Amino acid sequence: MNSLPAGATIGILGGGQLGRMLSVAASRLSYKTHIFEPAENCPAADVAHCVTTAPYSDLDALRAFAASVDVITYEFENIPTEALDALEALRPIRPNRRALAISQDRMAEKDFLTGLGLTCAPYARASDMASLTTAAAQIGLPAILKTTRLGYDGKGQARIKTEADMPAALAAMNGAEAVLEGFISFDREVSVIAARGLDGSVAAYDPGENVHQDGILRTTTVPARLSPSLRSDAVLIAARILNALDYVGVMGVELFVSPQGLLVNEIAPRVHNSGHWTQNGCAVDQFEQHIRAVAGLPLGDGSRHSDVVMENLIGDDMARVPDILREGHAALHLYGKGAARAGRKMGHVNRVIPAKA
Amino acid sequence: MNSLPAGATIGILGGGQLGRMLSVAASRLSYKTHIFEPAENCPAADVAHCVTTAPYSDLDALRAFAASVDVITYEFENIPTEALDALEALRPIRPNRRALAISQDRMAEKDFLTGLGLTCAPYARASDMASLTTAAAQIGLPAILKTTRLGYDGKGQARIKTEADMPAALAAMNGAEAVLEGFISFDREVSVIAARGLDGSVAAYDPGENVHQDGILRTTTVPARLSPSLRSDAVLIAARILNALDYVGVMGVELFVSPQGLLVNEIAPRVHNSGHWTQNGCAVDQFEQHIRAVAGLPLGDGSRHSDVVMENLIGDDMARVPDILREGHAALHLYGKGAARAGRKMGHVNRVIPAKA
Repeated sequence: MNSLPAGATIGILGGGQLGRMLSVAASRLSYKTHIFEPAENCPAADVAHCVTTAPYSDLDALRAFAASVDVITYEFENIPTEALDALEALRPIRPNRRALAISQDRMAEKDFLTGLGLTCAPYARASDMASLTTAAAQIGLPAILKTTRLGYDGKGQARIKTEADMPAALAAMNGAEAVLEGFISFDREVSVIAARGLDGSVAAYDPGENVHQDGILRTTTVPARLSPSLRSDAVLIAARILNALDYVGVMGVELFVSPQGLLVNEIAPRVHNSGHWTQNGCAVDQFEQHIRAVAGLPLGDGSRHSDVVMENLIGDDMARVPDILREGHAALHLYGKGAARAGRKMGHVNRVIPAKA
Repeated sequence: MNSLPAGATIGILGGGQLGRMLSVAASRLSYKTHIFEPAENCPAADVAHCVTTAPYSDLDALRAFAASVDVITYEFENIPTEALDALEALRPIRPNRRALAISQDRMAEKDFLTGLGLTCAPYARASDMASLTTAAAQIGLPAILKTTRLGYDGKGQARIKTEADMPAALAAMNGAEAVLEGFISFDREVSVIAARGLDGSVAAYDPGENVHQDGILRTTTVPARLSPSLRSDAVLIAARILNALDYVGVMGVELFVSPQGLLVNEIAPRVHNSGHWTQNGCAVDQFEQHIRAVAGLPLGDGSRHSDVVMENLIGDDMARVPDILREGHAALHLYGKGAARAGRKMGHVNRVIPAKA
């Protein structure tokens, strides 16, 4: 396998908290990082070897960035196509374009997943009142209307309880393409953080159980309450997705546990908030696993040494930091962001459950 | 307690692997770091917000460094006095000058420790043939001659088995002040990594058991084989030293376990190689503990969630990295150094022992 030598530089598109933690993981494997990020004073800048601050429309800056690195990866999926075109001509991008294209578009993602024989919530395109009416008749109400692109953390979504909600929901899409998703009844949400190496090997961490609030992840608990057979199913679903995409890197796969089995909610072609627990539950965390994959190193086996409850620190949660600092077995991970605005992810805490307690 | 606000900058003297890991720990607490290091391309540069490359004799560079940071700490004890004078006038230095002065001089250190009522191996100043002969008569042979200053990892030391070895041993000191230490019979060496906060609180990690080879630490195993009463003694010894120095930060205290009880070998006023296991055995590792102390934050309680065996990767050990990457529960920490010279610390691996195995 053609692995990056020690001292090589990994380019990372995006300098948020995920880029920051990827950069730290790269350092443990003797790699340097170069961050490309439009915003000034990004979180990753504190722990990166090099930072370029420029918009994704600056093709000269992108080309200089690509020329300075050995491989390119990213911390978020909404990278403009023109930027990827410029970069791909110069350096390998891992994970690949197809994974990005699919995860950038909810319709394409659902078509891809159902095409693999996996189950999703019922869905249909709904971009105007006519198609929305047809979709609602097909799927039933209540349902949820989501933009096909650029939605995250509950943004770009509108609930439709009755037909009377349709005009407002459509207006909330701001003219963007949208997809109507049926509500499904599920017991809990779990996610699998899985990785595929350059050699095609796959490794997965134990599934985590997620609790959301206002559309934002609050906690992930590992191990999840899952039967052994569902646990195995969850990992096999993730592996099928990774292999179908000839994927290289870490992916987050969100699943609903329903009476009918596992449904795929969505996939993220990157390290994932629900995998932060691995920093304190595993010798090789998801960030290092991703760096290993894109660098062509052998993957860690995903084994877990400790149970963990991860809690996101969002906005005002930062007021609890002084108390968290005094807790035993609480590992704090702050992102170095300035203002603690409502809904802004400022950090997380991994509470390790000692097996010997 | 007057703690540094998030976003503040911690200045670190020295950009080796300890500075590198301190910088990563600072980022988790939302602090930036500024590294001052004479050598180009130092390991800490990959993960620091800012680096100054200048000699310790460059007082202008030191003053600019101090002006850019909120507090100053260090990763090694042999900082020239003139540099400290320039820095101390501008910003607090933690740990303080007294701890540095004592640990820079083996004689002063031993006098300090025995003055506290602690036990060390027998020692006497021996700077020329006359004083060496007197010292040998007093302590007995075999013994070991060590420079009082600037020795580490077995450098600046010479064994004296018989009087015939004395001239060569003295010559090996290159005219430097030296101290003769008697050999003592001990079962094992352990070390305590302890911290003292700005508020005077003390916290210690469980003692680790160290194995050296050619004067360099090879492995640290936690927990150490120690009776409960010796474990308690070890922690109390460390606390006595920290309190006597009005110390702020992490200190490494090396102890010999002898039939007569615990003897203090030496102290290091900084994070210590024998504390690297805390990165994967504790929620708050020694690097974060040190940053918490110098930043005026509450200390972590030192609790351990997992047993760990830390192995240093020295020189040719790097050839084993591909195998280590394939091990389960092995956390690799490489330092980003270029050439793997003999005796050079290139990284370490923490092997976590899962309690559920």
